[in-house]
Amino acid sequence: MEISITKTTTPKQKPADESKLGFGQYYTDHMFIMNYDEGEGWHNPRIVPYGPFELDPAAMVLHYAQEIFEGMKAYRTADGSIQLFRPDKNMARMNVSCDRLCIPKIDEEFAIKAIKTLVEVDKDWVPSLDGTSLYIRPYIFATDAQVGVHPAKHLTFAIILSPVGAYYPQGIAPVKIFVEQKYVRAVIGGTGFTKAGANYAISLKGQEEAAEQGYVQTLWLDGVERKYVEEVGSMNVFFKIDGEVVTPALVGSILGGITRMSIIELLQSKGYKVSERRLSIDELVEAFKAGKLEEAWGTGTAAVISPIGELKYGDLVMPVNNGEIGEVTHMLYDTLTGIQWGKIKDEFGWTVKID
Amino acid sequence: MEISITKTTTPKQKPADESKLGFGQYYTDHMFIMNYDEGEGWHNPRIVPYGPFELDPAAMVLHYAQEIFEGMKAYRTADGSIQLFRPDKNMARMNVSCDRLCIPKIDEEFAIKAIKTLVEVDKDWVPSLDGTSLYIRPYIFATDAQVGVHPAKHLTFAIILSPVGAYYPQGIAPVKIFVEQKYVRAVIGGTGFTKAGANYAISLKGQEEAAEQGYVQTLWLDGVERKYVEEVGSMNVFFKIDGEVVTPALVGSILGGITRMSIIELLQSKGYKVSERRLSIDELVEAFKAGKLEEAWGTGTAAVISPIGELKYGDLVMPVNNGEIGEVTHMLYDTLTGIQWGKIKDEFGWTVKID
Repeated sequence: MEISITKTTTPKQKPADESKLGFGQYYTDHMFIMNYDEGEGWHNPRIVPYGPFELDPAAMVLHYAQEIFEGMKAYRTADGSIQLFRPDKNMARMNVSCDRLCIPKIDEEFAIKAIKTLVEVDKDWVPSLDGTSLYIRPYIFATDAQVGVHPAKHLTFAIILSPVGAYYPQGIAPVKIFVEQKYVRAVIGGTGFTKAGANYAISLKGQEEAAEQGYVQTLWLDGVERKYVEEVGSMNVFFKIDGEVVTPALVGSILGGITRMSIIELLQSKGYKVSERRLSIDELVEAFKAGKLEEAWGTGTAAVISPIGELKYGDLVMPVNNGEIGEVTHMLYDTLTGIQWGKIKDEFGWTVKID
Repeated sequence: MEISITKTTTPKQKPADESKLGFGQYYTDHMFIMNYDEGEGWHNPRIVPYGPFELDPAAMVLHYAQEIFEGMKAYRTADGSIQLFRPDKNMARMNVSCDRLCIPKIDEEFAIKAIKTLVEVDKDWVPSLDGTSLYIRPYIFATDAQVGVHPAKHLTFAIILSPVGAYYPQGIAPVKIFVEQKYVRAVIGGTGFTKAGANYAISLKGQEEAAEQGYVQTLWLDGVERKYVEEVGSMNVFFKIDGEVVTPALVGSILGGITRMSIIELLQSKGYKVSERRLSIDELVEAFKAGKLEEAWGTGTAAVISPIGELKYGDLVMPVNNGEIGEVTHMLYDTLTGIQWGKIKDEFGWTVKID
């Protein structure tokens, strides 16, 4: 399929101060859209000026949340070029989400081409200040104007772009995490392994109550036994316990993060032992009490690495590494961001140049 | 608050044949809208011509499914008047959903007033053929143009109306149900007790696979032990076992249906014993094998009562009452639909007249 391009005649003012971009505050001049209609498949791929969707009030996405998304970034390197990070993994995961949510699959290679073309059209929006990037949001939602519950026959695939600031403008710093015992994010048999909008709606309340208590994120436990660690906020989570790096195995309720995957490969390439296994909150408490809970961090596209400085489990407050960023955590952050922004040679073949 | 009314200048053609309305195929001339903005609360309630919403591509509802809904009906009675069924219960439940999904609560009485006013404006759309009704869909969705995950600060409350056909145009008939063992609809700690769009997105896949095997709906089991009966399709479920009427207790993962509540009250008023308790699939199998699984039915706004004629659990096919509608099931259907359409005196004070 050819992607038609209609350029805006009224380009927006770009944000003047790249140190104040924040996250998701600004959107670029253009967006990619493609439609699915039963009988026609995915068709009419086009880049058009960024602007509102007209949705029928009965549109299924507004009622039954048949919607999925992906998140990735374009990075400006020192030589001024722009690169993506493992876009093939994001698009493969998008199809995993499609399958679970009864959404017709997309052509992964074509979707990568659409991303590249859109970023190329809006390349002047890719910021260059240290730590900044262009956040890329591909997503699909159901548009059937029909309040009956059924898999949609009409959907929209869109990609929007947002220049975003450094996640740690004051330098990477550990955060305090609340271990959630009341609310559950996902359960085996559900959609926790996908990027369904549903998972995020379900997680809002726990996050809100943790925030009220002064905690930045929640540590989610499994929905069956309510004791196995699953994710932190909307990130995957890693712990270094007595020299072993542990991250929860992908049992069906946990998102297979691209950053998670990359961190595991990075650690293994450096000779670290990484265990993907079940990890109970009790094991974490015991490790803490024995002085063996050495480091903890979240991984995700937005933060890349988010060091955990404290875990609160009921009345027990567990500082990790005296609330400071650990050695492995820091190495991972420096290495992965180094590869992403082109400061370190990419030995893995993870980065993909635009142009 | 005053509800402003702007009438359409281009009324639609009403569906000519009330025997072919189907469900959710037609929408009336008007809709109700009210906005929430942080600092202002819910404001600007208005009835306007039915027409599309303009949504920013970054609108939260398209990404994180922060959305809830309700479903209810307006019924045309023999004397030509129009009545609602327990609208206070729907609006109370809407606020339960709001709370769980971090959505600012609505004024329940005002919302009922909005429903009544809108139905009054579009009263000529309430069909009068036997078994037809006007489906009422109140819903709320998040509109913040921001791809950060957070509870929305901007939301839209809307009500749309759809004239719908008789659920059983050929007369009430039992359906075949597939007992779902692979997928889970909801788990305690999640949003299963609310009408979050998320629950419906999560349930699509199980429904689709059941349909591929020739089954109309799935019987959902609990997400923890995967053996306790929870719901059927998007309905509550009842069984008559050895004279006892049993329905799953509202443990936190099951929707508290208004029809469910009414059926329990109706049965109790007639001297039936109703047990709200945990009910395992094993108990159902044993009852079936002992010849004590006497009747089974789903309850919900759309169907009111949906008799179950067969359950398939793995390789075991369990006909219920020889695949025919049971005596209690039929009595409940006749009584409740009788009250809703004003054919039977409402001894319970459930119906509310419009005007």
